[in-house]
Order: sequence, then structure tokens, then C-alpha cells
Amino acid sequence: MALIVQKYGGASVASCDLIKKVADRVISCKKQGNDVIVVLSAMAGETDRLIELARQVQPMSDPRELDVLLATGEQMTVSLFAMAAKEKGFEAMSFLGYQVPINTDSSYGKARILDISPERLDAALKSGYIPVVAGFQGVTSRGNITTLGRGGSDTTAVAAAVALNADLCEIYTDVDGVYTTDPNICPNANKIDRISYEEMMEMASLGAEVLEIRSVELAMRYGMPLHVRSSFNCNTGTYVIKEDETMEQVLVSGVTYSRNEARITVTKVPDRPGIAAGIFNPISEANIVVDMIIQNTRAGDLTDMTFTVPRGNYEMAMDIVKKVAKGIGAEKVAGDQSIAKVSIVGAGMRNHAGVAGKMFDILARHGINILMISTSEIKISCIIEEKYTELAVHALHEEFGLNHE
Amino acid sequence: MALIVQKYGGASVASCDLIKKVADRVISCKKQGNDVIVVLSAMAGETDRLIELARQVQPMSDPRELDVLLATGEQMTVSLFAMAAKEKGFEAMSFLGYQVPINTDSSYGKARILDISPERLDAALKSGYIPVVAGFQGVTSRGNITTLGRGGSDTTAVAAAVALNADLCEIYTDVDGVYTTDPNICPNANKIDRISYEEMMEMASLGAEVLEIRSVELAMRYGMPLHVRSSFNCNTGTYVIKEDETMEQVLVSGVTYSRNEARITVTKVPDRPGIAAGIFNPISEANIVVDMIIQNTRAGDLTDMTFTVPRGNYEMAMDIVKKVAKGIGAEKVAGDQSIAKVSIVGAGMRNHAGVAGKMFDILARHGINILMISTSEIKISCIIEEKYTELAVHALHEEFGLNHE
Repeated sequence: MALIVQKYGGASVASCDLIKKVADRVISCKKQGNDVIVVLSAMAGETDRLIELARQVQPMSDPRELDVLLATGEQMTVSLFAMAAKEKGFEAMSFLGYQVPINTDSSYGKARILDISPERLDAALKSGYIPVVAGFQGVTSRGNITTLGRGGSDTTAVAAAVALNADLCEIYTDVDGVYTTDPNICPNANKIDRISYEEMMEMASLGAEVLEIRSVELAMRYGMPLHVRSSFNCNTGTYVIKEDETMEQVLVSGVTYSRNEARITVTKVPDRPGIAAGIFNPISEANIVVDMIIQNTRAGDLTDMTFTVPRGNYEMAMDIVKKVAKGIGAEKVAGDQSIAKVSIVGAGMRNHAGVAGKMFDILARHGINILMISTSEIKISCIIEEKYTELAVHALHEEFGLNHE
Repeated sequence: MALIVQKYGGASVASCDLIKKVADRVISCKKQGNDVIVVLSAMAGETDRLIELARQVQPMSDPRELDVLLATGEQMTVSLFAMAAKEKGFEAMSFLGYQVPINTDSSYGKARILDISPERLDAALKSGYIPVVAGFQGVTSRGNITTLGRGGSDTTAVAAAVALNADLCEIYTDVDGVYTTDPNICPNANKIDRISYEEMMEMASLGAEVLEIRSVELAMRYGMPLHVRSSFNCNTGTYVIKEDETMEQVLVSGVTYSRNEARITVTKVPDRPGIAAGIFNPISEANIVVDMIIQNTRAGDLTDMTFTVPRGNYEMAMDIVKKVAKGIGAEKVAGDQSIAKVSIVGAGMRNHAGVAGKMFDILARHGINILMISTSEIKISCIIEEKYTELAVHALHEEFGLNHE
């Protein structure tokens, strides 16, 4: 007998009929002798509907009140799920963020979980109930409702699993698991059976949307095994676990890409201490996340600075940088929105030299020019022209041996 | 400067545009120098939509989980309203039942308010905020969400007004106030300017749906003046206040009717002690509310028992009574669903004899047979054949001098 936390995403609970099917699934796990805690997202589309309502009333919606509004989405699914389980003869009880409680800081819209009290959930389990926890929401020390940001229900599930010392955290979604690359681009993509936390974090941060990155980080910190799988079939999905020997034999685990990129270049910047901070502080103050940064030194104490930002923040970032450039006496600011980032991820890179060289070679042989490069211990990312995205993904996926046989 | 609690019903907040209009109204009251606490219902239709969702999942919905689901309706309107006020440059803050807190017993679906803590609302007022309180919902001592039943937001508003020692509680609705009778039946109906709590309670219990009866009871107990008015215009509505001298000059304040009636007669019941309890206890155990009861004695220790129940409970009540009648050796059970109740209400009846006689006379002159009669200090109700309902209302309204001049 094990304690399993099962998290179902919005697509899995998108209607009353689907909620009943999820209840069947939970009950069958329970019947096998397991204790189950269920964590649910809002019905697919509901959060967007609520955000739209808020915009109609207040275009720049007040963060505290927006969280009160958004929290209704998960409140609906947990109560409906508890009813569905009861209708099938099983005891279930819904728990909202403040009822568990799931304590967070007070960063509305992107709150961080501080801790989850296990007592009430534990008592419910001991009394034979299936606790049904609202994902995505928490409560501050002052009793205000917070939400955790997009994908926050994954984090709720992992945090609950950690707090209750569960044996496994299952993340149910509408795909069969984590793939070596996007199957929409590459029909030869393979489902990955086992992947390390570190690799999964790189994949998630590079655009693979199946798991929220903070949830992987949390699972890694506490060694909580994750099983990402489909709620629409019984196939084994992808286990996200501690790195072990068998994994290291794989050089590259996955190829990811992101079109959500834009590039800004400031040329002939006077090369003085503090110049980088002068450019990047105003950008981060506007809540814009800078990804890659490259600095090239020119002759005569001048330097060129190139960096990438999310495409949605491009206009705002350009405005800010143009002002700053004027102030520090830089020559020119140029921008480009038709770029993409392709990346390879693999724990095996740690022990194998030449992976980067192989990647650059593959891209070159396909006539793809590399605009920027960034590397970490287990990933290599290249910025290329956007029009080459599919070509690059196909080539890397094939030549690193990830294609279906 | 006064402290005013303003409650807006579902029709007044049925869309984002209407919520903005309500915000204008609240702000204009605030600009006049008043402190305002807002209490809101769910958008019109939302509660029914949620109940329908629950039925799809669990036809006999679990009371605790249904309340969790229904509470989302008011949670949406209070957050949207707070955003609307902020968009117009005013500080506002939403409060859910557990955040105030509004403490209730644990009768899910029809909880009673035990008390409202004034501290947080008071602090919000003192900091210049407009507190926006979710109507209809509360929280038990164990932190579970409850709802107060249909019309419960009226009670929330009055309870908040009492807890905060407000000067006035305004109930905004989609009609101009309380009328002498239903204007749909009687175009000559007049808006009542002032009515006593006692009369309003009788009117509410007799079918006038503009105010929830428990809210009037609570207002009466604490002497909280109510002002029932339209949210769609600025007309003065109806004040519900303590009875005073000027009111006593009016003999009859209003004429009400209800078609939601059915009559059951048990004939030749052995007239022994405990027989009435034997009939009515099983009915009340089935949660059916019996209204009028008449017992006629026959010769030979036999009695006839006639009573009324809500029409929706007629079939169930008949089944119960038929079983009981067999057990106690009664002769026959007969029923009738085509009846109606017409009533006149007026505090002036206390000091004037002959009001009942006049009512019976009016009905007789119009050829309307009276089937049952029930009276209280300030109201007289007659059960008549349903087809005479409009005729009876018209005749009573005119002959008691309530018609528009």
C-alpha cells in the first residue's frame, strides 16, 4: 500500500463527464489498496475566461482581487470532483488553499509555497476520505488568497506529496509523457521512459510545457519521484527521478525549441564598469526576463552588447534600452523578432566532450547560421533565424540518435 | 457622515457593465461623505448554473460540497466589483465569508449566521477602503464553507449592518420598492413609502419576494432601518422601520397572494390525543412545511383534518398521509392542488375591529368561496379556488383603498 498524490490538469477535468472519469480512475487506484490525494486544476479554458472578465472591468487587474477571482476555477473542480466520488460510493472531501492550509508568500499571481500543513489532509486520509485539494492557490499569513501562476497546480501536487511524505506524485495530462522533442514538429519523437530532475528542469525551462519548472525543482530538492502520464489511457508515462547510471549512457535526452524570443543589440557601448547594470537593471525593474547575454569587445574601449527577451516584452524592452543607450552614449540599438532558440539537453554531456561541437557541425551542414550560443552543464542552446526552426529540430533529433526506429 | 451597508442583488450585478454601474453608485454615496460597505449576490443565473453542474455530477448533491461550489458565485462578483472600484480610482477590498469572518452553524445550504466579527471590516473602513463582502456565504467553526439559502445575501447585509452598527442598510433590487400588491396583477398597485418590520415579515412570508424574511426578522430584532430600492434609478424606495403613529392610520398596507399551495384533507379521523402529532410528525420529518391547519369536530368522536403544504411537496405529502391514515383508521384522504392563498396585511388591524368581516364580505360579494381561513395579529389569509386569485386581489386592493388615485 502506497500514498500517491494524483494531479489532473485542466484538459482532464474540462467537463462534468471528464470529472466523473477522473473519479473512476482515482477510485480504481484506491481499490488497489493505495491512499490517494487528488490535486485538480480548473476546467480547461476557465482561467482564461475569468481573466477576460477581469480585463473587462479593470484592464490592469488588481493582483489581489484577480487571485480571488481566479481561485474560483479550482474551487469549482474540487467540489464537483468530491461529489462525483461520493456519487460512486466513496468518501471524498474538498480542500481549498486556506483550508489545508497551503501557506504562501503574498506575491499575488506568482506566489511561492512556504509550507503545507499535513495535519488536515492526514486526518482526512486516516478517516477514509479521498482529500481533493484545489491546485494553483494558497493563502497568506493574513488570510488573503494567492495563486501560484500558470502551471501552479503541478507545484501544489509536488508540495503536497512532499508534505505528506507520499511515495509517488503522478501528474496526469493530455499527452503520454515527456517526449524527446515536440511530436507536432517531429513525428519520430519518442516518449522518454525515465529522465533526471536536472534534465527535466532544462527541458521545462526551454519550452517543453508538460511540467511546470518550479514543481520539478521542488521534486528534485526532496527526491520526490514524478510520473507524468495521460489521463486518457493507462500507458506508463515518463518517470522524472534521480539521475542514475543507466541514464548516463544517453548523450542527449531531448531537443527543444522556443519561438518566444527576440534579440536586442546595443552597439559601441563605452566599456566602463557598471555599464551592464545600467542597461539590465531598468529592464528587470520592468519585470522583463533577459535570457542570453553576449558581450563583444571592440577596439577603443567600446563594446557591443546583445541579449534576448521574451517576444511579448520586445517593444517595452526596446523603449527602455533606447533611453538608456542615449544616456550612456552608445551608438545604436537594433532589434530582431524573427529568431528562435533550439536546444539539446542531456545529463550525458557532463562526461562527454565534443557534444557542442557536434551540434554546431550539424547546424552548419544544414546551412543554419548560429547567432548566439549559451551553454550549461547539461544543455546547449543556439539562437538561429526563426525560419530554420523545424529544420534544426529535425536534424538534431535525427543525428543525436533520438528518432523512432 | 453615515455608515451605510448597500446590498446589490443578482440582477444588479448580472454583467461586467452592470458591476461598473453599481461601482459608480457606491462611489457617489462615498463622495457624499458616507462610509459604505457593499454586499453582493452572485450574477443573476450563476447560482442556478452551478446547481445544474452539481446535478450532472451528483443528482442529490452533497451539501458540504455544493456549498463550496455555490460560494464561487459571490466570490466572482466581489472580486470583480473591487476591481471596478479601483479602476475608478477608489480603494476597495473583497471579503469572503471566512475572511470577515461570517460565522455560521454547519447547516449546509441553509446555515444561520451566529455572528459577524466587525474588526477586519472596521479596519478596512478606517484605512479608507470600501469593503466588498460576499453575500450568501459563511464559515463554520471548523473552517468549512456554508451558504445561507436563497435570498441569504439580504441576511448577510443586515447582519453586517448590525455588527458594524451602521446607520442604514440599503437593499438594491430590480424593482422600485415594496408594493401594495403585485403590479403584474394589479397595475394600480402603489409603492409603499414606509412599512413596519412586522408587516414586512408577513408580506415576505406570504409571497412578496422582494426581501428575504430572515433579514427582516434580524433587522427588527436590532432596529436596523432598511431601505428597499431600485439599482436602476435614483427613486426613493420603501423604508422598512419600527412601527410608528403615522403608520397606524393605514388599516391595510398590502394584499399578497400565493399559488404555491395545495390542500390535503383527512376525513373521519378518530379524535384521540396524539392523533395530530401522528399525522404531522412524519410530514415534518420529510422536511415539508405545513402552513394552515383546520380541525373540524364531527359527531361520534370523529374529526376532519385539513391542512396546506407547498405545491411542490404535494405528492410526497399525500403518500405519507395515506400511509398514516391507514394506520390510525381514518376514512379517506383527499387532495386539491388548484387552490391559492390571498392575504391582507396591516398593522392597523390591531386597533380596528371588523377588518376580517370586511374581507370576507368583499370576497363573498364577488362570488368567491372561502375554503380555509387563518389569521394573525396583523394579517388575514384566505384559501380560495385558484381561478379566483386575480379577481380576489383586485377586489381587496380596491376596496381597502390601496388603488392609485
